[in-house]
Amino acid sequence: MSQLPPAVPGMSLSDVETPALLIDLDAFERNVAYLATRLNGTGVRLRPHAKTHKSAIIALRQMAAGAVGVCCQKGAEAEALVYAGVPDVLVSNQVVGPRKLTRLAALARQARVGVCVDHPRNVADLDAAARAFGVRLDVLVEVNVGMDRCGVEPGEPVVALAQVVAAYHNLRFAGLQAYQGSAQHVRRYEDRLAAIDTAAEQIKVTLRLLERAGLTAETVSGGGTGSFEFELQTGVWNELQCGSYVFMDADYLKNLRADGAPGSIFEPSLFILATVMSRPAPERAIVDVGLKSLSVDSGLPHVVGIEGVAYVGASDEHGKLAVQGAPAEVELGRKLRLIPGHCDPTVNLHDWYVCYRGDYVEAVWPITARGAVT
Amino acid sequence: MSQLPPAVPGMSLSDVETPALLIDLDAFERNVAYLATRLNGTGVRLRPHAKTHKSAIIALRQMAAGAVGVCCQKGAEAEALVYAGVPDVLVSNQVVGPRKLTRLAALARQARVGVCVDHPRNVADLDAAARAFGVRLDVLVEVNVGMDRCGVEPGEPVVALAQVVAAYHNLRFAGLQAYQGSAQHVRRYEDRLAAIDTAAEQIKVTLRLLERAGLTAETVSGGGTGSFEFELQTGVWNELQCGSYVFMDADYLKNLRADGAPGSIFEPSLFILATVMSRPAPERAIVDVGLKSLSVDSGLPHVVGIEGVAYVGASDEHGKLAVQGAPAEVELGRKLRLIPGHCDPTVNLHDWYVCYRGDYVEAVWPITARGAVT
Repeated sequence: MSQLPPAVPGMSLSDVETPALLIDLDAFERNVAYLATRLNGTGVRLRPHAKTHKSAIIALRQMAAGAVGVCCQKGAEAEALVYAGVPDVLVSNQVVGPRKLTRLAALARQARVGVCVDHPRNVADLDAAARAFGVRLDVLVEVNVGMDRCGVEPGEPVVALAQVVAAYHNLRFAGLQAYQGSAQHVRRYEDRLAAIDTAAEQIKVTLRLLERAGLTAETVSGGGTGSFEFELQTGVWNELQCGSYVFMDADYLKNLRADGAPGSIFEPSLFILATVMSRPAPERAIVDVGLKSLSVDSGLPHVVGIEGVAYVGASDEHGKLAVQGAPAEVELGRKLRLIPGHCDPTVNLHDWYVCYRGDYVEAVWPITARGAVT
Repeated sequence: MSQLPPAVPGMSLSDVETPALLIDLDAFERNVAYLATRLNGTGVRLRPHAKTHKSAIIALRQMAAGAVGVCCQKGAEAEALVYAGVPDVLVSNQVVGPRKLTRLAALARQARVGVCVDHPRNVADLDAAARAFGVRLDVLVEVNVGMDRCGVEPGEPVVALAQVVAAYHNLRFAGLQAYQGSAQHVRRYEDRLAAIDTAAEQIKVTLRLLERAGLTAETVSGGGTGSFEFELQTGVWNELQCGSYVFMDADYLKNLRADGAPGSIFEPSLFILATVMSRPAPERAIVDVGLKSLSVDSGLPHVVGIEGVAYVGASDEHGKLAVQGAPAEVELGRKLRLIPGHCDPTVNLHDWYVCYRGDYVEAVWPITARGAVT
């Protein structure tokens, strides 16, 4: 049920079938290189989050630039990437249920696999699955550093769970998963900084308690595209999990920098190519891109480079543009680019990346782990 | 890149891998039968919208119950369904661009294919594509009956475009596409009724003008799950396009009936099966279903049958439940069902329907046109 690719290499961008998910390769490569260079010599490893791109090709590019492996959010995602050649994955999440644990332990025979825990019963189940396959899994204890989603509270609860992990033969206590997800999209620079400083203090206290209990958190993993500069400054994290930096999205681009202006050191490299399919009124144009080819959970997409034109409403298969003036770019049949509001769930709607440089398609990459939600 | 099915027939529902998209076959079959029976003897045909279910199996079930064919919203969707055996599809939408028109005309050699138009240039392109493949396409002129999306305005603009269509040799003017989409989710019964009455008046005027111009609108197609009772009453529409009625969703179930209470004659038959994957605090449970397995554009999902438990937040792969008391149904590892806020874009996130009856899986159906957005 995979769809036909909307393009072939060599094709002009204007011939690409729409909707299509585009990668501007120049911008993408600059983003990958920037973060790799930024971490050079800091002693902090990069383990980018593959939940953003779900692509083995991109994961291997990131590793070629220095990343130690990637993060996944689901076991099925890890399977898809490992089967396509990625040698080291951390499922930065809990894996719960006998079938899922069996699959994860089986995968650990094919690649280096780590996983996170926040409950002693899950730790016991994980050890049993690992034992059945004769593997030893790296286990990080997830700490709630302010996101109030999964994870145990900082301090003694972490020590207690780490001791449970350490007591099992087929598990290795490898450190902490400490991602402050709610800090990522906080607009003000100072507020993001404050959230990460608070998290850093909680981790420091926890690390001291672990040490006192004779346990070593070899890895402290976390950080995201919106906050990694702050995690770096603290010296607490030694592994960063940024994902969106390869693509960026309209929501991340609204974050404010230290100077108070919106923007990022990373460039938007992910676009949806759309066709104007109806031009029913001067002030209204309809494109063929709606909820089934972009996710609007973090806001509507941004129309690239057309003065006076805004995407103002999405229905299942349609996008409504409000048009000022009579720009030629929105005449019937014209193609235009949109920056999606939120890159991760948008990528998950597509089977192919159409990768271009300048005006030409250079590659068409499968989205290996599209729909890998189990 | 299609995912492994999360179940096999005969499996107990409690063994199904999560997230999984479930169909309660009993409820689904009652929904299909109810609408078929309701239209019996009215002279109004049913052409259900397949953009909801994207399944050839369901389309053929609907046709076995009396539907004359199905609607699609995209050419690629029509292809997927025709290739899987559906003999009659109406693309209830504009198809714009040379590649898309070529594919549509080619498809018309394999099945009965209709399409909608709202622009004379697109009509000319459509005729050229049809001529190249030696086919004659049924063409409906789309009328804007209040949704303000695609479509020409009622009255003379419809006549003018219908005349353009009728002048081409490889096109047949087959009638009007008149869908009042914005009426579907208006909560108050009287307001939905009023919107459809207004649309009906606009169509009546248009039909008189067409007749005066010597043109016959053989088909007047439209109507949806939220409004079809009203379209039926008017006597103006002779073909209904309801889609969501097979599944329903949390948003449609909020519509008010004539007695002022929320609810529908159709039953929810589509669910997402979720696993409680973290239980970090008494008042918080986390399930493994987030934005990548359900669409939140029309609101958050409804948790089925657990007192005091509500789905209050979605991130990419997580759902946050607010928990009152200590219900056993949300203990770690337990599975529960969610009614998605919006069925159509949720279905598009999955590769398989897990169809169950009682406690057992009876069938696993591919979602034939998942991701068919071009």
